[in-house]
Amino acid sequence: MEIMNKKRMQIFSGTGYTALAEDVAAHLGMKLGDIDIHRFANGEIYCRMQENVRGSDVFIVQTHCEPVNANIMEQLIMIDAAKRASAKRITAVVPFYGYARQDKKAKSREPITAKLLADLLTAAGCDRVVSVDLHTGQIQGFFNDPLDHLTALPLLVNWVTENIPSDEDIVFASPDAGRVRLAEKFQSRVPDAGIAFLAKTRTAHNVAKTLAVVGDVEGKTVVLVDDMIDTAGTLCGAAEALAERGAKRVLALATHPLLSGPACQRLEDSVIEKIVVTSTLPIPEHCGSDKIVQLSIAPIIASTMRAIFEDESVSELFDDDNI
Amino acid sequence: MEIMNKKRMQIFSGTGYTALAEDVAAHLGMKLGDIDIHRFANGEIYCRMQENVRGSDVFIVQTHCEPVNANIMEQLIMIDAAKRASAKRITAVVPFYGYARQDKKAKSREPITAKLLADLLTAAGCDRVVSVDLHTGQIQGFFNDPLDHLTALPLLVNWVTENIPSDEDIVFASPDAGRVRLAEKFQSRVPDAGIAFLAKTRTAHNVAKTLAVVGDVEGKTVVLVDDMIDTAGTLCGAAEALAERGAKRVLALATHPLLSGPACQRLEDSVIEKIVVTSTLPIPEHCGSDKIVQLSIAPIIASTMRAIFEDESVSELFDDDNI
Amino acid sequence: MEIMNKKRMQIFSGTGYTALAEDVAAHLGMKLGDIDIHRFANGEIYCRMQENVRGSDVFIVQTHCEPVNANIMEQLIMIDAAKRASAKRITAVVPFYGYARQDKKAKSREPITAKLLADLLTAAGCDRVVSVDLHTGQIQGFFNDPLDHLTALPLLVNWVTENIPSDEDIVFASPDAGRVRLAEKFQSRVPDAGIAFLAKTRTAHNVAKTLAVVGDVEGKTVVLVDDMIDTAGTLCGAAEALAERGAKRVLALATHPLLSGPACQRLEDSVIEKIVVTSTLPIPEHCGSDKIVQLSIAPIIASTMRAIFEDESVSELFDDDNI
Amino acid sequence: MEIMNKKRMQIFSGTGYTALAEDVAAHLGMKLGDIDIHRFANGEIYCRMQENVRGSDVFIVQTHCEPVNANIMEQLIMIDAAKRASAKRITAVVPFYGYARQDKKAKSREPITAKLLADLLTAAGCDRVVSVDLHTGQIQGFFNDPLDHLTALPLLVNWVTENIPSDEDIVFASPDAGRVRLAEKFQSRVPDAGIAFLAKTRTAHNVAKTLAVVGDVEGKTVVLVDDMIDTAGTLCGAAEALAERGAKRVLALATHPLLSGPACQRLEDSVIEKIVVTSTLPIPEHCGSDKIVQLSIAPIIASTMRAIFEDESVSELFDDDNI
Amino acid sequence: MEIMNKKRMQIFSGTGYTALAEDVAAHLGMKLGDIDIHRFANGEIYCRMQENVRGSDVFIVQTHCEPVNANIMEQLIMIDAAKRASAKRITAVVPFYGYARQDKKAKSREPITAKLLADLLTAAGCDRVVSVDLHTGQIQGFFNDPLDHLTALPLLVNWVTENIPSDEDIVFASPDAGRVRLAEKFQSRVPDAGIAFLAKTRTAHNVAKTLAVVGDVEGKTVVLVDDMIDTAGTLCGAAEALAERGAKRVLALATHPLLSGPACQRLEDSVIEKIVVTSTLPIPEHCGSDKIVQLSIAPIIASTMRAIFEDESVSELFDDDNI
Amino acid sequence: MEIMNKKRMQIFSGTGYTALAEDVAAHLGMKLGDIDIHRFANGEIYCRMQENVRGSDVFIVQTHCEPVNANIMEQLIMIDAAKRASAKRITAVVPFYGYARQDKKAKSREPITAKLLADLLTAAGCDRVVSVDLHTGQIQGFFNDPLDHLTALPLLVNWVTENIPSDEDIVFASPDAGRVRLAEKFQSRVPDAGIAFLAKTRTAHNVAKTLAVVGDVEGKTVVLVDDMIDTAGTLCGAAEALAERGAKRVLALATHPLLSGPACQRLEDSVIEKIVVTSTLPIPEHCGSDKIVQLSIAPIIASTMRAIFEDESVSELFDDDNI
Repeated sequence: MEIMNKKRMQIFSGTGYTALAEDVAAHLGMKLGDIDIHRFANGEIYCRMQENVRGSDVFIVQTHCEPVNANIMEQLIMIDAAKRASAKRITAVVPFYGYARQDKKAKSREPITAKLLADLLTAAGCDRVVSVDLHTGQIQGFFNDPLDHLTALPLLVNWVTENIPSDEDIVFASPDAGRVRLAEKFQSRVPDAGIAFLAKTRTAHNVAKTLAVVGDVEGKTVVLVDDMIDTAGTLCGAAEALAERGAKRVLALATHPLLSGPACQRLEDSVIEKIVVTSTLPIPEHCGSDKIVQLSIAPIIASTMRAIFEDESVSELFDDDNI
Repeated sequence: MEIMNKKRMQIFSGTGYTALAEDVAAHLGMKLGDIDIHRFANGEIYCRMQENVRGSDVFIVQTHCEPVNANIMEQLIMIDAAKRASAKRITAVVPFYGYARQDKKAKSREPITAKLLADLLTAAGCDRVVSVDLHTGQIQGFFNDPLDHLTALPLLVNWVTENIPSDEDIVFASPDAGRVRLAEKFQSRVPDAGIAFLAKTRTAHNVAKTLAVVGDVEGKTVVLVDDMIDTAGTLCGAAEALAERGAKRVLALATHPLLSGPACQRLEDSVIEKIVVTSTLPIPEHCGSDKIVQLSIAPIIASTMRAIFEDESVSELFDDDNI
Repeated sequence: MEIMNKKRMQIFSGTGYTALAEDVAAHLGMKLGDIDIHRFANGEIYCRMQENVRGSDVFIVQTHCEPVNANIMEQLIMIDAAKRASAKRITAVVPFYGYARQDKKAKSREPITAKLLADLLTAAGCDRVVSVDLHTGQIQGFFNDPLDHLTALPLLVNWVTENIPSDEDIVFASPDAGRVRLAEKFQSRVPDAGIAFLAKTRTAHNVAKTLAVVGDVEGKTVVLVDDMIDTAGTLCGAAEALAERGAKRVLALATHPLLSGPACQRLEDSVIEKIVVTSTLPIPEHCGSDKIVQLSIAPIIASTMRAIFEDESVSELFDDDNI
Repeated sequence: MEIMNKKRMQIFSGTGYTALAEDVAAHLGMKLGDIDIHRFANGEIYCRMQENVRGSDVFIVQTHCEPVNANIMEQLIMIDAAKRASAKRITAVVPFYGYARQDKKAKSREPITAKLLADLLTAAGCDRVVSVDLHTGQIQGFFNDPLDHLTALPLLVNWVTENIPSDEDIVFASPDAGRVRLAEKFQSRVPDAGIAFLAKTRTAHNVAKTLAVVGDVEGKTVVLVDDMIDTAGTLCGAAEALAERGAKRVLALATHPLLSGPACQRLEDSVIEKIVVTSTLPIPEHCGSDKIVQLSIAPIIASTMRAIFEDESVSELFDDDNI
Repeated sequence: MEIMNKKRMQIFSGTGYTALAEDVAAHLGMKLGDIDIHRFANGEIYCRMQENVRGSDVFIVQTHCEPVNANIMEQLIMIDAAKRASAKRITAVVPFYGYARQDKKAKSREPITAKLLADLLTAAGCDRVVSVDLHTGQIQGFFNDPLDHLTALPLLVNWVTENIPSDEDIVFASPDAGRVRLAEKFQSRVPDAGIAFLAKTRTAHNVAKTLAVVGDVEGKTVVLVDDMIDTAGTLCGAAEALAERGAKRVLALATHPLLSGPACQRLEDSVIEKIVVTSTLPIPEHCGSDKIVQLSIAPIIASTMRAIFEDESVSELFDDDNI
Repeated sequence: MEIMNKKRMQIFSGTGYTALAEDVAAHLGMKLGDIDIHRFANGEIYCRMQENVRGSDVFIVQTHCEPVNANIMEQLIMIDAAKRASAKRITAVVPFYGYARQDKKAKSREPITAKLLADLLTAAGCDRVVSVDLHTGQIQGFFNDPLDHLTALPLLVNWVTENIPSDEDIVFASPDAGRVRLAEKFQSRVPDAGIAFLAKTRTAHNVAKTLAVVGDVEGKTVVLVDDMIDTAGTLCGAAEALAERGAKRVLALATHPLLSGPACQRLEDSVIEKIVVTSTLPIPEHCGSDKIVQLSIAPIIASTMRAIFEDESVSELFDDDNI
């Protein structure tokens, strides 16, 4: 018996941030697959795909927003269901990858949870992963399956060039010593931009830490850059120090708006004028600030998924890390 | 260089139900290991063992109570930390094993989450598992690592023989057709006891389901048995049907007190006189009913852990499934 | 170099029960693949596929009939040969799955051979499995590869409705406490049917076991149901007890006719009028009894294999476990 | 809790050739472990260790004699039982390794069953292997676990030097072109011995194959050497050709006495004076010939097992392959 | 979304022996894929494919010539790059397989490097392997992925029949006891050819080894055969011994021309008239001898690669090992 | 049979940098294990341990110096040999971890060779790893086995405080934007020290890149810090820029002295006064410069190995990453 081989693509969304998955599907001219996900009384997750996935190229979209552990478990369970339902290939689409900051043992007897998460996804039956602006690029190496690592960098740079007048002197600043390389990436894409960062320093007898601005920011439009904004503590502290050192105005860019706990209030109260983020995570409902601008990441994810399905290259847009 | 080989045992508890872990440790004359577990602002779990575990026989105790997904993730993360800290052997002690009811595909495109959980524990680095009264014994086969499967059966039988007058006629009843074998196990341990179960039946035209009592219960002390009580819906329905069929009084025995959602109120309102459970799970705080008796499972778990550490047999007490 | 992708299906049969494989192939309008299987003088099995299988979707059909160990090894060896010959996907079709009853440790230091068998099939290179009425559904979870779990339930129910006059009162009975749920599945599909089971009971001093009928069978047409009939000891004992309790007549249904050792003679001598089984296993040659009716399982297996090959859903017919 | 670490050794035998396992245990001053192995009516194997093996160094002895497939399955099942019973380390002792001759694809679409067997042992949970005179040394590489490869060569050479008068001219002969290297190994250990082999040749038009003796055998005591004697066809043909070419007398040495089918009768009828083998396999009961001498392999296996248990080197005796 | 499935083939070459890869590609009417491979200052290898390989059937050609370790690492790195770039299937084409001679433990505490190499290729992500005349066929079993084992035997036999006059008496000779089977394979393909080998012998007191010719070579055209020629020491020693025993002339055939160290000079100085090899390895540049004839292996490899890509059988030409 | 359990430690060195391994062994009062490692004529590596390693805790020391690929292969082969010789545990000691800079895909279709190397070590049979100052801490997560990550930071800081007069103003500088965090770690350990880094900047039209000093260095003693010095190009460029910006003097600290290609000459010619490195790699012989100070890393590695062997904590000294 011999027949021609066709291939089919389906997208299923977890319950974490369905709006994003719908946005992605819309960009592909598709509908989300029909799936029943609900909780049992004791919190256990039930899931069942309501349509045939046999031989299909299945994408399971779940960003690791709160409640992060339940959303991760939900995605693992969905992958297991798809695997046992004979999906041909299963791609986990994880716009924000949870536990990315626990990517090494900073102290003894810590876990490396970002690696554990990679192993869990693999154990569940995931064949490949799509993610956006991983906290460190090395997380790519936590997987042996192919991982498409997208970046919101062009999206954010584009916002800068369209929204900051060309006669302002821009300085990209890292809120701490660990993200200076990221600031340099922004700087290299914006002509004549400067660079700076905030350093923790100590007095002679270690009695107090202070925050020193390294680099020239006086009279400049300073754009703080980071991969994510969690509680916004470091970010707002950095903004204040920059303002004290004479920055004309301070803005902030980041891919992932975690905006946990006190973040929204802190940003509202801070000297930061605008906080530009993407839709890899939902903005918490209580976050009504006008300062926050959310750019849609869906077009980037959608075009990547199409390329994966059609075996086209996805590197042209995203793959210029070393400029 | 050559030295004598000693071995050392340590117990760490997750945050799910610390009281049980402390109870277990107390029975071993030990203290719980010092561990820092806390949540980050976005819900991610941090964990770090505060004492050296290198070369140690580490037991990580976590029952899968609510919030079940977070508690599972926490246990996986603790295992990863112990593995990377060079523990010699890691035993996951899981008094109540989560997702145990999703142990097969009852419908197409369902996951088998109980197997997924086994794979996740193995992927994290777990070397062996201790659990109590798994929903089905086949879950043992979901692991290739050794699993010590304990049972609260003797504990519960003992309660019956000590608390029900010997002149009462006891009938052990299963609340549905799937647990009749369990009722038979109780029956075989109590002289002259009878057996019954509740069957769902339909009228000729499928218009309605009714609950039929199969077996003789009139004038008897009926003891409903199950492995777990979740929302208590089936259990209370069964008790009512038994009472209608003339049962003198109705009691209930189960190993795992999930007592989710409406369970406590339902039990309080039901005809069931006493509900006897064990401490594999915490009784929810709002469950103030005097009807509920909780027996400590800690001695059984503690003696098993000691036997594992000392390479002694653990089968004498628990291993009589086929009587 | 770029070409269109076609896919091709081939079926090879082990030597265990070739007639079934031929029956399946005939339902697909195909011929069995040409394969050389023979034994060396010391009992070692030789196998070589005589036609190209490169890139093919290969189905290897072997039911685990006697000699069960040799038939299992033969299937593993065939899988290894297909894997090394570059088959694209290898499906083990196992109508009766051997060692299914050893699916948990009922006593300490027992193996879980049903899991071992799953691991052996996977180690040999099997990509997916098709089986019929596994002894317990949990065996599905012994595999991480997809498993299509078929059921002869509709086939057997159909026989009942076509062969038992509608004016008889039917009671489905389980021969022991462990299969009551199966009796309930039959009952739910036949309007107005009743349910019963046989319980082992003891006298006060444990001096003797007796077999008690739980449920009402007097004057009824009792249909004993089980997944398999091995030595038929329990079944015939149950039938006798049912007859003593006043059953009008007794029949038996089961998917798998192992019919080992004394089974045929026992059935012949028993009060059971008819024993209806399927062709997942061959009826032993010495079993000449007119009482045994064998229904062909081939159409169900064939349509499943076609669906697997063509990536169509196979759940419509079989997937109603929870009725 | 901290205790000293002791280690314990236990030996269990399959049912294939218990006498050999008892012989090995006796050389260690031990008794075989208590184990229940029996067959169910349909041929499935049941096994249960009757004594605690937790933390123990377990040796599972089974030679792959007839019925070879059942004996292999039995060993796999015993390994699974020991693994799940928490044995610390499991060593499969396989004096004759089954399927050793299917160690490569001589033709397309053949399996490599010797590798499959290695994978099955590993999948079952075997940690290390002990075997004697593997058909090809490369089978060692089929395992990633340590394999102790023993040889009966010194035992057989010793027989030669003790039983063949020193004034006879000895020639070691290989019965075919593939074992000349083995003949050379014997030759290198016996001073002044010669070497020869039997070559298949063809006439100009390929009409017939004949067997040519390559090397000088006239008037010599020719000792045919091979790793195993299966049906003895090649061996007896070689002996006849040697006699025709003037060999004074012909003897045969081999480690493994398979002696399948017509072997015993052929040897009895042949010109071979003596056939010297070891006890890696039982001599078939019908083989009453006085010609066959069986040397015990038990001392070699026993001393190896002791060395494995005590972490001593086992190479002194056996490891001189390259002389 | 549903599309037709096409498949695409690409070939990338390592830097070891690019001329061979180009030769293979030319036979397929293809060009080698564009790849950037270079060394960093400290010798680390960098590689990047310069064209999209997503979904492609990728062949990575690298023979393990000197520098053997760097060439192996380079191939592993190329495989890793292709895997992470989402190649659909990766075939390592290894005309000469390095470390093939270390395929067993000849002495205790040796590695089995040929197996290690197989594991490294698998760990890197290789899906299948193509190789030519492996040192022992058992290396096939070191892989669980399919391996296409090609042979230059027909090519070399063809040279013999075309270049040695039919009135000469040909004897195929093995330079040592381990390759007599190979000589027999040649002999069986050339009518009326004879067979011989060189045996190491010792005097009574082990004082000296001498090389004895076993078989009749006087006045014959002796063709020494081996799988590879490394330092040519054994080969030239054998040739001399053959000449001394009266061989009319001596030639040599081998698949793999390692020609390490003194090999070229030794061959030049030897009595061997012609040395016929294939292009699985490059002839060292300093090897200017007219005696060496190199036959192209590219057509055989190319036709195999085409068959793999198109799922056609590759066995017709190569699979006659047992003649 | 029951005996007490002892444990034994052995150290074997590859041929890459034996002096370091000897230094480590001397600090432990041990001798290196006796091992035969040599090359065959074609460059293949042979290795054999000359002493029994059965049951031993084996450490295999090999830093990945030039020739890096051969040294890696040699270590893998040594691990394979130890594994097959029944070592109880195998620790790869890798003072400088090769390919550490290829730890993510900076461009599409690149490999992640640092992860590949981790997988190769694991595939060979390595149970744990010891390394020093990995290029990025995330490489820890490339392993699932425990990895002890040591740091030379205290050693290098100690050199600064002992060799730079306390009245000088010290500024720690990163030669590029990616290592600012490392400079901060040094700064936090030296009271009153400053921090700076070198940024690549562009003119408005991207016509040229220049190197800008960010931070205040005028009149300061600037200490450039990095994890490794390869060709020294970036380092010397940075030093020059710092001198131009008025640095009083410039020194350089790094853990790993690769010193490839032109490095030694460049350093000799540069404005850098002193280059302080450790002995994780050998200083190339042609590097006669008095400027280079090499501190021994052996005491740190030796004390770690002792702690691993004795199951003591190794975190006290090294584990303060987050100060």
